[in-house]
Amino acid sequence: MAPNTESRIASVKSHLEAKKQVKARQPIQTPTPTESLAAERANPSFPIRELTYYLDGSEEDTKLYEKFMFELERDPLWNMDDHYNLSLPEVRERTLAKLRNVLPSLASETPEVFLKRIILMGLVDPAFYTRLGVHSGLFFGTIQGQATPAQYAYWVKKGAMALNGVTGCFAMTELGHGSNVAALETTATFDEATDEFIIHTPTTTATKWWIGGAAHTATHTTAFAQLIVKGKNYGVKPFVVQLRDPKTFNLLPGINIGDIGKKMGRDGIDNGWIQFTYVRIPRQNMLMKFAKVTRTGKVIQPPLAQLAYGALISGRVTMIRDSANYAKKALTIALRYAAVRRQFSSDPKQPETKILDYVIHQNRLLPLLAEAIAVNFTSMEVSKQYNQLMSQMQNTRPGQDLTETIELLKETHATTAGLKAFCTWNCLSAIEQCRQACGGHGYSGYTGLASMYSDFAVQCTWEGDNTILTLQTGRSLISSYADIKRGNNVSKGFNYLKMADKLSTFRCPGDDVASIVNFETISEAWGVVAASAVKISADIYENAKTKSISKDAALESCAVERLHAARMHSFGYIFNKFADAVRQAPESIREVLTKLCLLYGLHSIKENAGEFLSCEYFTAAHMAVIREQVNHLCSVIRPDAIPLVDSFNYSDYIINSPLGRYDGNVYEAYFNLVKSNNPQEPVPYFKSVIRPILTANYNQTEIPDLEIDQQ
Amino acid sequence: MAPNTESRIASVKSHLEAKKQVKARQPIQTPTPTESLAAERANPSFPIRELTYYLDGSEEDTKLYEKFMFELERDPLWNMDDHYNLSLPEVRERTLAKLRNVLPSLASETPEVFLKRIILMGLVDPAFYTRLGVHSGLFFGTIQGQATPAQYAYWVKKGAMALNGVTGCFAMTELGHGSNVAALETTATFDEATDEFIIHTPTTTATKWWIGGAAHTATHTTAFAQLIVKGKNYGVKPFVVQLRDPKTFNLLPGINIGDIGKKMGRDGIDNGWIQFTYVRIPRQNMLMKFAKVTRTGKVIQPPLAQLAYGALISGRVTMIRDSANYAKKALTIALRYAAVRRQFSSDPKQPETKILDYVIHQNRLLPLLAEAIAVNFTSMEVSKQYNQLMSQMQNTRPGQDLTETIELLKETHATTAGLKAFCTWNCLSAIEQCRQACGGHGYSGYTGLASMYSDFAVQCTWEGDNTILTLQTGRSLISSYADIKRGNNVSKGFNYLKMADKLSTFRCPGDDVASIVNFETISEAWGVVAASAVKISADIYENAKTKSISKDAALESCAVERLHAARMHSFGYIFNKFADAVRQAPESIREVLTKLCLLYGLHSIKENAGEFLSCEYFTAAHMAVIREQVNHLCSVIRPDAIPLVDSFNYSDYIINSPLGRYDGNVYEAYFNLVKSNNPQEPVPYFKSVIRPILTANYNQTEIPDLEIDQQ
Repeated sequence: MAPNTESRIASVKSHLEAKKQVKARQPIQTPTPTESLAAERANPSFPIRELTYYLDGSEEDTKLYEKFMFELERDPLWNMDDHYNLSLPEVRERTLAKLRNVLPSLASETPEVFLKRIILMGLVDPAFYTRLGVHSGLFFGTIQGQATPAQYAYWVKKGAMALNGVTGCFAMTELGHGSNVAALETTATFDEATDEFIIHTPTTTATKWWIGGAAHTATHTTAFAQLIVKGKNYGVKPFVVQLRDPKTFNLLPGINIGDIGKKMGRDGIDNGWIQFTYVRIPRQNMLMKFAKVTRTGKVIQPPLAQLAYGALISGRVTMIRDSANYAKKALTIALRYAAVRRQFSSDPKQPETKILDYVIHQNRLLPLLAEAIAVNFTSMEVSKQYNQLMSQMQNTRPGQDLTETIELLKETHATTAGLKAFCTWNCLSAIEQCRQACGGHGYSGYTGLASMYSDFAVQCTWEGDNTILTLQTGRSLISSYADIKRGNNVSKGFNYLKMADKLSTFRCPGDDVASIVNFETISEAWGVVAASAVKISADIYENAKTKSISKDAALESCAVERLHAARMHSFGYIFNKFADAVRQAPESIREVLTKLCLLYGLHSIKENAGEFLSCEYFTAAHMAVIREQVNHLCSVIRPDAIPLVDSFNYSDYIINSPLGRYDGNVYEAYFNLVKSNNPQEPVPYFKSVIRPILTANYNQTEIPDLEIDQQ
Repeated sequence: MAPNTESRIASVKSHLEAKKQVKARQPIQTPTPTESLAAERANPSFPIRELTYYLDGSEEDTKLYEKFMFELERDPLWNMDDHYNLSLPEVRERTLAKLRNVLPSLASETPEVFLKRIILMGLVDPAFYTRLGVHSGLFFGTIQGQATPAQYAYWVKKGAMALNGVTGCFAMTELGHGSNVAALETTATFDEATDEFIIHTPTTTATKWWIGGAAHTATHTTAFAQLIVKGKNYGVKPFVVQLRDPKTFNLLPGINIGDIGKKMGRDGIDNGWIQFTYVRIPRQNMLMKFAKVTRTGKVIQPPLAQLAYGALISGRVTMIRDSANYAKKALTIALRYAAVRRQFSSDPKQPETKILDYVIHQNRLLPLLAEAIAVNFTSMEVSKQYNQLMSQMQNTRPGQDLTETIELLKETHATTAGLKAFCTWNCLSAIEQCRQACGGHGYSGYTGLASMYSDFAVQCTWEGDNTILTLQTGRSLISSYADIKRGNNVSKGFNYLKMADKLSTFRCPGDDVASIVNFETISEAWGVVAASAVKISADIYENAKTKSISKDAALESCAVERLHAARMHSFGYIFNKFADAVRQAPESIREVLTKLCLLYGLHSIKENAGEFLSCEYFTAAHMAVIREQVNHLCSVIRPDAIPLVDSFNYSDYIINSPLGRYDGNVYEAYFNLVKSNNPQEPVPYFKSVIRPILTANYNQTEIPDLEIDQQ
């Protein structure tokens, strides 16, 4: 069946139209890059500023971001001109200098305002963001979440909040142990005689590893270790351990620390390894909000160990937000460049065509643009949910009934685990696709996408390896589905699983475009495939359990399907959050957001076509319509592509890429960056290696002129 | 419908079995990493050495590779111990020193033997490989392919083959022009008075860019420029232009050269920019095998311009081979580590489970293993085809009828274009998946996968941007399909397109496993989806043409479908080459290769399920069987995983990753790399930035103690 020719022709016509306009203006001359980009802004279909406010949260938020961008751009310490050529020690010194200079803001601003400042800083210098995050989010976050009120007051007074006398790191991961925290080898053995814990690294694999800030810059750490009291192991607990003398910065006795060396990215952060050799710390340094050890060695365990990991959820929320922001930055670069770069032309008398006018380029980038916006709204929703959780947890007092908090924690854990995984994976992939969409120049360091990839990649494995997180989400889905079958209530986000037992009753409501291309159909379709995927995993799991294998083995038997269920669930979740945001959007921007939301929904269906066909929600004919509509929506969104990335409102300083400049003057700017790299002297190694190459003669394995046979 | 529980249970049982064996041997103690890896080699299902010979080509080839690995490992210049900490000038000096030292081999070995040597060198140092390849493959390759016999003899005598007095680079790409070579701006204007060409860079965007070797190390270049004679433009031709005085290395008059600076990877190669300002070269420096300019300015054009780009096809063949080899190296690292790394355990009294024993980890890595082997065999086949083409082209004499050569060139072009694109994309993705499969340690530089990614990534955009190449393949497919409809013969590889007009007659021959899981069904299935995709594109194209839009616009209207058709064609092609190789394999290794080939075929069907369901070749029930069989094949191949990567036969020196060591002693080796990174002195920036942080007090915005109101 031939796809709809009319709409094809329409989209090719707009392609030709774009060329004709150029022709009318300048019959032979190619518009300059700056003219090319300016033309893109002539007639946006929506008020750009309104969209900026909505994406940022509010007009007030936007203005705050703008103030911070202004400050950063003029701060000599944040000058980025030389950062491609700094040595490793210079990069690290710079990171710390930035940390020093941000401390007045940390001390004086509310957490909400300060967060906005460092979000922008993180987009420019991810390693700085990590260094601060390791202290504030992980080290101090652990104290905040796991100290008793008295302990908390003590560490705040000592300067742990303001980095005043105390700079912290977070020693959880070991060389041989990552995601399975329960198997950490480091021990904390209680010595009742002295009222101390002895922190010890018993083996090489127990060496704390990847510890950001440990190598050179932290005075203290929160170390996670097996609590051993009177010979009995009570599991992993957090302990504050001092590493260095803050005056001299010498290592304390028993502490051995080194730099773990070369990494893929984030050079500015000093990841280190730590070995503890019988290091004694006061009993009071165990953080005892949940588990406690008394003076006489009595151990009081908390009702649920999960409560200890609140700090990790905060990291996930951050990473979902990062996923939106880095993708927005990457797309600003790739799309502005695509509106300037010209290549090929069907008529030799015409200028070459902007690569953004090619259907294939639109199909590469515009679905990613829609996805970035989808994740932007999802991130706002998740932050809201997380803040609710935190306020509940921080109001918890020892002894209080924790049931409700634990339920909310479980739900937030399950949602954020899957979202962290799929949002970071998708963002990493979006960065790489943007990089490749810049063609050869995507490989240049100055384009900014190569380092963005290297810096971002760690988000897929740190603070919960993505694969393991998705399996956890899958496990929650199976468990919620079991609850439904038992007639129990489940939380709102899992309600759609009720469809699982009547899947065959859900079918796309019609064969025409209008029946397919709307929020309700797309949402229902995602609900059906997600419910089906959960049901398949749950059935395998239940069947396996009847064969009397253990629960773990039964979960293992459905691992592939469980991961898949988590993927379908998360994609559907993101679509629904996007659709909700569109419904609540100001009218002036609702139309453009609607197109983007439909593009996101249909494109992600197209990418997972096999699921929708297997569930028979869509037929092959529906899929043909969907593919057609993806192309169509791309061509409809195309004229707004530049206004849309403009709405992300990142200044040229934040973008920091000649290809992503607001004015489009990409080639001059790029050349200016390197035009002085042309010393007139030969390189120092000319004499040592180049000249010998040019003058060598290798065909002379000399054969001794001896008449051997005659001797 | 519940998937086959029995086979699930079987695969979980083997998982439990693995644990039980451990238990029997050592009730509590976890086997050491070395013991863990040794156990994997106890009982391979096939003779490893036989597979090595078959993958390498022959026993003789394997022995040659082994000799070269031995030589490299002991060559002090190739010592890799310090390479993570070298400065950029040091890296570049090292690259050139390696180049110098390989010249005797270049001069004395046959091209076939020398190729094997540099394939291995390239796996260790991709930038070195590029520097040599730029000279030999691109610069000298252009001379070889486009010079007249007299010109060729001249340049060989001058030292251009042996790098003796001449080191070359290849100046095609410009700052503003990449894939569309015809739009290059650099001009070569014939001056009849002096019998010279004037090479000139008229604008900033015409600056030659990305030119490997230009920045600091080349004496000459082959520059591609618009040939202008008597005011008329004859299109882009190649010219040899000298850049530097080989004695002093000073730039010649009119040559302006610089370094293009920071890149994503391949630091060892000095990519540069070149501006020519009215540079005069003798007329004899235009390479005139095809187009010619006579003393009096008469221009003789070649019959087909494509003949000029043979050198680029050679690059593609290399990149298909690279795709296999880098994936094999990456998988050796990820799989050996997976057989050593342990994480989680369902029984606290048991050692943690090897991550390779998890179904999900097998599903991540084993299909990639099958793919690497598929591409290995595909690459061997493509090399054979390319060598045939080259021997025909090199035997071409001016004036000869070129029809047959041009047909073969077209076919090789179409095949290699798509394969270059999909093989490099898949390899890049495989490297990243291997990196992530190493968890947190994948982010370490020493694991080797981060730099492998950065170095390899350029293969997706250089020497033909992947997206553009796939569109070219798609265009050839449409054209071959049109030939078939006209009743013309097409080349063998396109014969399956005859299925396109009777697609509905092809259905999976049965519903049981045996009917689905065999080479013939899988091959037919790929044929059907590829033929269907080509037909859909061709129909859109033909419909568009009837609307009297131009051929280019009609091709543009089916771009998305065309790219998709190229993808389906290439995947089917790779499967068929793998299946052919299995059929011809020695019996001792045929069984294991059969499993791998089935896994490759079924997994790629699973990943593209939507296509197969839309074509109705497979039903949803078939797809469920296929998913099940992918899991099953993973569990069946699992016990051979380490013997399989052992068969790739890369020495520890080539692997250069503590995680991929043959002996499995990963943690000690990794720690040994960084354990001396622990200087006892604080870092130099302690005083400048760390101490100020620790001692600052930011809560003191002093308010002047003035009674202003009383003045």
